[in-house]
Amino acid sequence: MLKRVEYPGPISELVAQLRRMPGIGPRSAERIALWMNQSRDARPGEIARAILAAAEGIQPCVRCGFFSTGPVCEICSDTSRNGMLLCVVEQATDILPLERTGVYRGLYHALGGRIAPLDHVGPEELRIDELLQRVDVEKQEEVILALGADVEGEATANYLAELLAEKGLRVTRIAQGLPAGGGLESADELTLSRALAGRR
Amino acid sequence: MLKRVEYPGPISELVAQLRRMPGIGPRSAERIALWMNQSRDARPGEIARAILAAAEGIQPCVRCGFFSTGPVCEICSDTSRNGMLLCVVEQATDILPLERTGVYRGLYHALGGRIAPLDHVGPEELRIDELLQRVDVEKQEEVILALGADVEGEATANYLAELLAEKGLRVTRIAQGLPAGGGLESADELTLSRALAGRR
Repeated sequence: MLKRVEYPGPISELVAQLRRMPGIGPRSAERIALWMNQSRDARPGEIARAILAAAEGIQPCVRCGFFSTGPVCEICSDTSRNGMLLCVVEQATDILPLERTGVYRGLYHALGGRIAPLDHVGPEELRIDELLQRVDVEKQEEVILALGADVEGEATANYLAELLAEKGLRVTRIAQGLPAGGGLESADELTLSRALAGRR
Repeated sequence: MLKRVEYPGPISELVAQLRRMPGIGPRSAERIALWMNQSRDARPGEIARAILAAAEGIQPCVRCGFFSTGPVCEICSDTSRNGMLLCVVEQATDILPLERTGVYRGLYHALGGRIAPLDHVGPEELRIDELLQRVDVEKQEEVILALGADVEGEATANYLAELLAEKGLRVTRIAQGLPAGGGLESADELTLSRALAGRR
């Protein structure tokens, strides 16, 4: 019986850790681990340092939930923004894509997820209480719900729309329809029916 | 003029560091960085620790160049292997793929690259002197050249074959031909001509 040779422990452990990262399969993990150990310009210490610095130096903004180095993030601290406009998103990671459009200058509120009973995520798991308190204090003119266009995103948006409308707030939702550059032939039926319903 | 919002410094720096890894583009790097900062089970400290442990705990085997936690690697320390058979590879990373075939039970010697004048890699940059000294001392019966099937691999193999043959050693090369599962219609002309030349 041959003894099977494998990479020494520290490399196997590194491969296992890298595999946990999203989008990294066993082959990529092995390739990266070997690159770290073989390439002259890999400088693994710098990578490890950057991971630790981000893990230790970043916290969610207490107000909107965006990534921040201090208690309040860059967006919430920017007094030139329109505080009367609030955009509700599922995750903090949804904020930057909206920012990059360059067309929105209000504030944000990240819920930290969406209502998903099958995954045991109810309203109390999300930052919904904080949202309701926030609109009471900040008295926004409009709340834009920018949630996912799937069943759970829709359900969460419906739930929030009702609560916010009770407070007399103007509640809008981002449009659903054809993606830019997309032809009708590549759109599914649900997208098309929503594009039709949302015509203007 | 709007101030462009970006991720806070530690996250941007982490994205930049992750992008240096092979096969990781800007989108994957951002996705991984955000996962590290958002996911409950990311445990970035463990990943950083594994990177540092591999960087500090792994050294090339003084004999063959394979990854090792001590001066001499697991393969070279295994007295049940056939020391009369030596397989020369370009990189330490080429050793495990050969091991995984399960058909080779000799020892290895990683050159650390191949002769590539255009990249300023001459024979003196590689572990060729060590190879020649090794065969003098260990007196192998056969040296198998398992180098790449490209121009530089061929040139390196020719160079080594001459030096080793002068010492009266039996020198062989791994075969070139159709890859397993490959049909003739998908093979290029060079592969086919080599498969023809290597018929047996």
